[in-house]
Amino acid sequence: MSVNSFGRVLRFSTWGESHGPAIGAVVDGCPPGLHLSEADVQPFLDKRRPGTSRFTTQRQEPDQVRILSGVFEGRTTGTPISLMIDNVDQRSKDYSDIATGYRPGHADFAYDAKYGHRDWRGGGRSSARETASRVAAGAVARLVVPEVTIRAYVVEIGGDAVDRANFDEGQIDANPFFCPDVAAAARWEALVDEARKAGSSVGAVIECVASGVPAGWGAPLYAKLDAELAAACMSINAVKGVEIGDGFGATRLRGEQNADEMRGGGMFLANHSGGIAGGISTGQDVVVRVAFKPTSSILTPVRTVDRDGLETEISTKGRHDPCVGIRGAPVVEAMMALVLADQKLLHRAQCG
Amino acid sequence: MSVNSFGRVLRFSTWGESHGPAIGAVVDGCPPGLHLSEADVQPFLDKRRPGTSRFTTQRQEPDQVRILSGVFEGRTTGTPISLMIDNVDQRSKDYSDIATGYRPGHADFAYDAKYGHRDWRGGGRSSARETASRVAAGAVARLVVPEVTIRAYVVEIGGDAVDRANFDEGQIDANPFFCPDVAAAARWEALVDEARKAGSSVGAVIECVASGVPAGWGAPLYAKLDAELAAACMSINAVKGVEIGDGFGATRLRGEQNADEMRGGGMFLANHSGGIAGGISTGQDVVVRVAFKPTSSILTPVRTVDRDGLETEISTKGRHDPCVGIRGAPVVEAMMALVLADQKLLHRAQCG
Amino acid sequence: MSVNSFGRVLRFSTWGESHGPAIGAVVDGCPPGLHLSEADVQPFLDKRRPGTSRFTTQRQEPDQVRILSGVFEGRTTGTPISLMIDNVDQRSKDYSDIATGYRPGHADFAYDAKYGHRDWRGGGRSSARETASRVAAGAVARLVVPEVTIRAYVVEIGGDAVDRANFDEGQIDANPFFCPDVAAAARWEALVDEARKAGSSVGAVIECVASGVPAGWGAPLYAKLDAELAAACMSINAVKGVEIGDGFGATRLRGEQNADEMRGGGMFLANHSGGIAGGISTGQDVVVRVAFKPTSSILTPVRTVDRDGLETEISTKGRHDPCVGIRGAPVVEAMMALVLADQKLLHRAQCG
Amino acid sequence: MSVNSFGRVLRFSTWGESHGPAIGAVVDGCPPGLHLSEADVQPFLDKRRPGTSRFTTQRQEPDQVRILSGVFEGRTTGTPISLMIDNVDQRSKDYSDIATGYRPGHADFAYDAKYGHRDWRGGGRSSARETASRVAAGAVARLVVPEVTIRAYVVEIGGDAVDRANFDEGQIDANPFFCPDVAAAARWEALVDEARKAGSSVGAVIECVASGVPAGWGAPLYAKLDAELAAACMSINAVKGVEIGDGFGATRLRGEQNADEMRGGGMFLANHSGGIAGGISTGQDVVVRVAFKPTSSILTPVRTVDRDGLETEISTKGRHDPCVGIRGAPVVEAMMALVLADQKLLHRAQCG
Repeated sequence: MSVNSFGRVLRFSTWGESHGPAIGAVVDGCPPGLHLSEADVQPFLDKRRPGTSRFTTQRQEPDQVRILSGVFEGRTTGTPISLMIDNVDQRSKDYSDIATGYRPGHADFAYDAKYGHRDWRGGGRSSARETASRVAAGAVARLVVPEVTIRAYVVEIGGDAVDRANFDEGQIDANPFFCPDVAAAARWEALVDEARKAGSSVGAVIECVASGVPAGWGAPLYAKLDAELAAACMSINAVKGVEIGDGFGATRLRGEQNADEMRGGGMFLANHSGGIAGGISTGQDVVVRVAFKPTSSILTPVRTVDRDGLETEISTKGRHDPCVGIRGAPVVEAMMALVLADQKLLHRAQCG
Repeated sequence: MSVNSFGRVLRFSTWGESHGPAIGAVVDGCPPGLHLSEADVQPFLDKRRPGTSRFTTQRQEPDQVRILSGVFEGRTTGTPISLMIDNVDQRSKDYSDIATGYRPGHADFAYDAKYGHRDWRGGGRSSARETASRVAAGAVARLVVPEVTIRAYVVEIGGDAVDRANFDEGQIDANPFFCPDVAAAARWEALVDEARKAGSSVGAVIECVASGVPAGWGAPLYAKLDAELAAACMSINAVKGVEIGDGFGATRLRGEQNADEMRGGGMFLANHSGGIAGGISTGQDVVVRVAFKPTSSILTPVRTVDRDGLETEISTKGRHDPCVGIRGAPVVEAMMALVLADQKLLHRAQCG
Repeated sequence: MSVNSFGRVLRFSTWGESHGPAIGAVVDGCPPGLHLSEADVQPFLDKRRPGTSRFTTQRQEPDQVRILSGVFEGRTTGTPISLMIDNVDQRSKDYSDIATGYRPGHADFAYDAKYGHRDWRGGGRSSARETASRVAAGAVARLVVPEVTIRAYVVEIGGDAVDRANFDEGQIDANPFFCPDVAAAARWEALVDEARKAGSSVGAVIECVASGVPAGWGAPLYAKLDAELAAACMSINAVKGVEIGDGFGATRLRGEQNADEMRGGGMFLANHSGGIAGGISTGQDVVVRVAFKPTSSILTPVRTVDRDGLETEISTKGRHDPCVGIRGAPVVEAMMALVLADQKLLHRAQCG
Repeated sequence: MSVNSFGRVLRFSTWGESHGPAIGAVVDGCPPGLHLSEADVQPFLDKRRPGTSRFTTQRQEPDQVRILSGVFEGRTTGTPISLMIDNVDQRSKDYSDIATGYRPGHADFAYDAKYGHRDWRGGGRSSARETASRVAAGAVARLVVPEVTIRAYVVEIGGDAVDRANFDEGQIDANPFFCPDVAAAARWEALVDEARKAGSSVGAVIECVASGVPAGWGAPLYAKLDAELAAACMSINAVKGVEIGDGFGATRLRGEQNADEMRGGGMFLANHSGGIAGGISTGQDVVVRVAFKPTSSILTPVRTVDRDGLETEISTKGRHDPCVGIRGAPVVEAMMALVLADQKLLHRAQCG
């Protein structure tokens, strides 16, 4: 019942603070015999890594992962896989202001209300840095579901959406925004630059598609695939909304419009349901969309209070993402992989 | 790890099919000494009960709850509370068509793909009837959080939204739509009637607000209050989207707009975050919005296949809700209560 | 994390008090497609049922089980199986003395210390009556492990042990003690009769053997098959000790004596380990022994205090087992079945 | 549901193999604000550390613990506490024989049967080295229950028991056997020496007493304090039996003898129940006894098979404990602390 753990049969736990010596994840329940080395994990960390463009935080973290257990002679043994990433570029002094003042929208006040004592350096445990642990764990999960292809990309930044007609999967890795629409990517460059220079930040919507998921994964009722994905994504820092398939859009359809009619050979004529019916995969693409709010650590001064309740203003001088949602794409992919791998094993447990 | 259970410290499990002899919930971990009788539960079931207006299914179910354990001399004993509701109005023959044909958008196909054998009568376990068990469990949860007031209402049906300027809490129970806007309620009457008569269905958006939640409930990272609420709501039948606070709307705000600035005395100048920061309650209203798709059981014939993969058409003759989201309001309230009660106890465990 | 639930993938929860209207169990995670009806469960309840000889409590309970969900057309559907047993022969007035006085050795004082409010009728939730729910759940679990044969029997009562040389499996069901040694059964008749007439009680040791368990079930480290069995058995009322294989006896062996040497064809030359090495089954018989203390509800007056802390004497007039361990045999069998079925599914999840 | 995790509200997970780069534990759910540094953990590791006398393995491991997260400015923050211990003295070549041959009584065969691929170096994950992680986690747990004093000691080695009349707590740390009886310690010196020189091994019984546990901890039915302790202890390597209070001895008492009679002021006249009634603490000393089998890694050749099923003999040349039970004392203490701390928090959750 660890609140820093996720998953049922394949389960991972993360630990570590933004400015502590290291962060990490322990993955338990992984099937034995899978080929696994640091080289399987590193590419995903590299995609999430900060400092790769001017549109992300300038903190320089190599995010080199080490596998400390659970692998022998290049293959998993079925025992816990301990993944560790050292923190390298910590400049805690950047954060001295937030030791006492609460950043509005950030976790500072809430953590103090809950725990009474917190590691304020860089947001401590509430930092987006924790998502590196998820990405590492997610890389292991991918090996458990080799039949599935997972792809996340940004479909909207600051209210400016991609044009679906321009969708080009090849573009996703060709720009710093994981954007499938080359025209939108160009617009976002200006948009994010402007926010960054203004000391502000913008939000984003990530879409993630998993192809190759067979029909039958997921479990009613409190482990519905929709519910697991919703919890998985909503646990990511800065996320405030999740929808499956047409999501909120489906509320504006009629029953017959929203019906994903079927034809022979397991063919569906539409996928409004995002590949999940009754909480169970249908064999279609599993589609989730995730809302990332604008980063709350901004240079623009905002009104707040300090630990003593005294009114003050605060602006965050630390190095932050002008649009934290961008780097959310590899994180959402990781969570998708972790949920699907877990549900695959859970399905195998019950249904053989 | 029961997939039919929800919660961490206060945990409930539900069982039962739409057309079996009964359905029920077992609530475990409830604090001892709370005053509890059927009279504390029944009013919430009555709100969710079908057959109360022409805008819901005409199945007649009294939904009388019985408490079979966990209460002695009118007070909880800290042992499991078994809640049971008999199924009374079962007409399984209404469903003979769906024994073999899959209703598009419904769980039929997916259940068969997963289990190979399913109770097709009325949707069996995948029926919205299961939500009565949640409502019963939720009534117990409310007793655990007497400091909290929970209110859900419908803010949109078929794409027609309430006018926030007309918000009148007193209206919510004065119309069959749990609608806080008297003008919208009038429009929805025509809208839902039209859909019903056309053998179609419409979707809805429910909003739920919990007031009185103190700062400090919820737990990073995989038990964030946002994540728990998302999973809780997404586990409800027909739900395909969840957002906390401004949700998807927050992605279109700038960082300084989305900041919930603070003043002395724990005062916030806004509540874009829906009362949750870093996964922990801030003391503001906790706000969640939930998207219910249009009912997939409709009279309008749609194309589908049968168990043998043969192409056919299907229309559902059973008695169904033209807008299942309406009766979702008391269900969302129940899930909110269950999440908050659980997190209150979990917080007390760790932080005293 | 329900404390009234047990199991990981196949999970059961029990509810109900000795003198409430009913008791029951909900089994979740059962594979679909298994043939199941009340007739599969009742025989095991009949073995545990009270009132079948003068050596058990004279409470008359038919213990008729009803299956309320999870089965359709005679086969499991993979959804929760709700099992219910009505309480029929409640004479709460027998227990009026224990409403205020604490029976030494019983749960009365501890429950009050914990909860402050308890159902004292017949021990309420702490009554051995709860074990009927386990036996019902265990009958379902047996269907999940058809390859396994489970047999529990009494090997010692009141310090008088069976002679292993006399072991005759056919005798187990031929006497009221589940005793495999006809000579011991004859001695126990006198021994238990004497205790009963003296208003006293005696303890017992149950041994349970599961044959046909393949090598590979169980999981290091905190789900070791030994640990799961220990928890399962120690959760039974009146149990105060558990040992696997040679157990405490193994501490008096030398390493080479305790080694279960191996020969070709997966043959072992001994089974000191009780069929479990490193927490994982070896393919040999799984052997557990369980210590039941003498019933604490006795007619003999003993010194105690009442709820106000005043010193008094108490003797329990209710109908009790002079040797509660006897009826423990079918309960231990049920727990063995539940643990093995759960571990089988868990193994399948991880290792395919 | 991680099988490498233990606990409900306070939960720890361990990872690491005997000959990997490091081992560790992650403790989740720890209350915030507790003073914690490496100095609080190291003394307990030092007691368990190998190589401190000729009666334990000669592997030289400093077992220096590092705290990588969850502590800020010397106090816990309520976030996961990552504890890491480097492996220093690995001589994997000692184990080349067991790469293919199965040590009878050890986990080798069972791990291969389960996983098909294992880290055979020093037993890998099944090595007693894992218990260092538990001891580290247990040191954290002790801080959660400052009201409790926990003391484990060896009461029997190779069938030679201490004389309770000689019990002297001061002796426990004055000899290499954690033996409270100076005379027994002297006898054991010869006994263990003889076994060691003969290339054999002997078993042991550990007793652990927790004083200061208030009445009310523990939870019926599947989280009974007895059941939690049984699972906790049975999960330790080489343990094959657990008893609470009089345990198996209680089966030879009459009901009135086994009754722990009560007098005013919460006084008990005996403690046959080991401080637990109905699964809940009574306020008396909590007493558990644990059976450690003789080490299965011995120099004496025994018959076995190899991975290909061919018959062979094996003797383990690695450095091993002639009596692994001795070093079990600090491990049992740790598990007692972890169970009690968890149950304290769980009790606080439900009962305030």
